[in-house]
Amino acid sequence: MITQRSVAAFLDELASGAPTPGGGSAAAIIGAMGAALLSMVCNVTLGKKSLEAAESDMKAVRDESERLRARLTAMVAEDIAAFDGLMAAYRLPKSNDEEKLRRAEAIQANLRAATETPLDCARACAQVVALARRAAEKGFAGVVSDAGVGVLAANSALRSAALNVYINAPALKDRSFATAATAEIDTLLDRSARESEAVFELVRSRLG
Amino acid sequence: MITQRSVAAFLDELASGAPTPGGGSAAAIIGAMGAALLSMVCNVTLGKKSLEAAESDMKAVRDESERLRARLTAMVAEDIAAFDGLMAAYRLPKSNDEEKLRRAEAIQANLRAATETPLDCARACAQVVALARRAAEKGFAGVVSDAGVGVLAANSALRSAALNVYINAPALKDRSFATAATAEIDTLLDRSARESEAVFELVRSRLG
Repeated sequence: MITQRSVAAFLDELASGAPTPGGGSAAAIIGAMGAALLSMVCNVTLGKKSLEAAESDMKAVRDESERLRARLTAMVAEDIAAFDGLMAAYRLPKSNDEEKLRRAEAIQANLRAATETPLDCARACAQVVALARRAAEKGFAGVVSDAGVGVLAANSALRSAALNVYINAPALKDRSFATAATAEIDTLLDRSARESEAVFELVRSRLG
Repeated sequence: MITQRSVAAFLDELASGAPTPGGGSAAAIIGAMGAALLSMVCNVTLGKKSLEAAESDMKAVRDESERLRARLTAMVAEDIAAFDGLMAAYRLPKSNDEEKLRRAEAIQANLRAATETPLDCARACAQVVALARRAAEKGFAGVVSDAGVGVLAANSALRSAALNVYINAPALKDRSFATAATAEIDTLLDRSARESEAVFELVRSRLG
């Protein structure tokens, strides 16, 4: 599992000319970092006697951010599998009509997976962005900047995942799926851009 | 060294209530991922016979992105040391005037380091953002989205580092240093926001 490798080794592999890990894997990890930072804000706040009023909020946010962190961490391997599957489909033989047909079908099936995987990543990142406001509003002031870093990470991961939807959707023959996927991504991008900027400004105002 | 720990273990530590690693460390790693993705675009492009014309550009970008990746990776430990130093200064005894004076001096020295460290991180991230255009323009079309993910990562890391400058600068007694640091951060934020959006749009247009 690639997330069992060291941070330094992951960065080396990301920098190499090997096809994976690439931007999709980086997006999933950056999204997971965003979720982890929201959990951190909750964990620190839950340790403060003076902030007992925030307890139920912080527990609810942490349950959700930990679920999203696990989901986004698992997506690193899913992104690599989707990319490898697509590359394998393109390498299938095409020396006669039957092979050509089989190759075209395999490409379509794998393109769909390679569109669904970043779409799932974008959905999870959008949920991290949506969750950040409560952490930024009710979290201990000493870690409010971490909520800010969390929302920036999640929103940039969402935009990164969106690029992978935009790459693969145009080649899909199932136009209704492709159109629905890009429309959903456009909506997520738009909403999360507004939400994340609002949280960033809230964090800046709380820094005084 | 924290970057020798696994990605999964780093995420666990980030999510925990322990004071470090926090947003500053996450920002340095996200910036390093941005630099690594630019290196990847160069490495893939350098392997393409049809893109020989881009060779000198890709080598120059890669030299710079690899230097920035090493610098940003090293900053994870520097961020932790700066944070720990500041926390240790706040914990110094203050039972008499001499102790109070020594504590106040230690806090100021450590606040300065805790402002300079994220400022250095922001400078390095701004350089990654500035470098991304050449990777996005001249890199192999099949990895242009990775240049897009790289520039988004670097810009969100810059904004994250900026939050840590904004936290620490107000408490600095050396007002001329504090004012210069926040003015520099404001300039970097403004310029990189424009540059990174332009590169993101370039990438989207190259995706077709």
